[in-house]
Amino acid sequence: MKLYDLELSGNCYKVRLFLNLLQQPFEKVTVNVLKGEHKSPEYLSINPKGQIPTLADGECIISDSQAILVYLAEKFEAESWYPKDAQTRAEIQFWLSTAANEAGRGPADARLVKLFGAGLDYNQARQKTDALLNLLEQHLQGHDWLVGDAITIADIAVFPYVGLAGDAEISLEPYPAVRAWLNRITTQPNFIGMPGLHPAEQTV
Amino acid sequence: MKLYDLELSGNCYKVRLFLNLLQQPFEKVTVNVLKGEHKSPEYLSINPKGQIPTLADGECIISDSQAILVYLAEKFEAESWYPKDAQTRAEIQFWLSTAANEAGRGPADARLVKLFGAGLDYNQARQKTDALLNLLEQHLQGHDWLVGDAITIADIAVFPYVGLAGDAEISLEPYPAVRAWLNRITTQPNFIGMPGLHPAEQTV
Repeated sequence: MKLYDLELSGNCYKVRLFLNLLQQPFEKVTVNVLKGEHKSPEYLSINPKGQIPTLADGECIISDSQAILVYLAEKFEAESWYPKDAQTRAEIQFWLSTAANEAGRGPADARLVKLFGAGLDYNQARQKTDALLNLLEQHLQGHDWLVGDAITIADIAVFPYVGLAGDAEISLEPYPAVRAWLNRITTQPNFIGMPGLHPAEQTV
Repeated sequence: MKLYDLELSGNCYKVRLFLNLLQQPFEKVTVNVLKGEHKSPEYLSINPKGQIPTLADGECIISDSQAILVYLAEKFEAESWYPKDAQTRAEIQFWLSTAANEAGRGPADARLVKLFGAGLDYNQARQKTDALLNLLEQHLQGHDWLVGDAITIADIAVFPYVGLAGDAEISLEPYPAVRAWLNRITTQPNFIGMPGLHPAEQTV
């Protein structure tokens, strides 16, 4: 498997992390976003949105980081990460949608402004981040994990840009349940980090 | 099954449409959004984002329209709508993410501005709509459906706000493959419409 990747992308990290948690080997191909390689005709032919990451598994090409998590969980029959019953699947989809929408337009956009000078509305991204963090805090006050009693791809999908909130100059101090959840993730066997990720009280 | 619903919501329509296509009976409970009922403590207890729709199937409560599509496809073992192999699941997830992100921040937000006077950035929503329509047009020039050779929940997830583009004062004239796809959807057995939906050349 080949991952079209960028070290500083939270969405690429999401996939690198899950591949490591599953202990599956892969080859990294760096896409030089600063040079515009993600908008080149070659890259657009495998990722029509011109986004990173893309996973190429032989002839099977998957883009969208949530879709790649689904692909890997299904391919490797990682059932604990993606249980098959209807209610659990739907609850996981709720958080995959949240990762694609609120986490993207909230903390990921806020980080793009602060870390890369992107011309996006920081205040709007900040408001969406606050709403997301409040939603997570409320949920995690009563649960260890986003869905069910164990870590799933829902946690992996939402975790990166929350863990990278510091890059976006957003403090997690008011969110103790979120910080405890980050700590549960970062202490998983085979966890890997990325630049800018500062787990609350990382013990590994 | 009980659907917390609003007639003019494209996301609620998405679920009503899929329930009709599956020929499953359900009870509608109107959530009076103009009166703020979606932000009431009672409603927030079943939908923590304060959004519509929500599906209540006995004790099982699902929010997020994409998550409800997944739930219904799994519950009713509607395998043609949501095939089980890893690649197809991932390709469907690509479009579920697109429905949650680009369709929401593009044509759905543009429609909120034009139809309900929402204080959102119309030009930004318009740009995101153009990008989505170009992505769809490019894909549908070579395919009848978003994933594989038959209609799936990917089509149902993305279709409503594209079909409602007229409400957002966005013309589909430059997108013939998108219009042909809308027509394929609106001529499905047991298709139902909603106010504002103007299929290109509806024949039913």
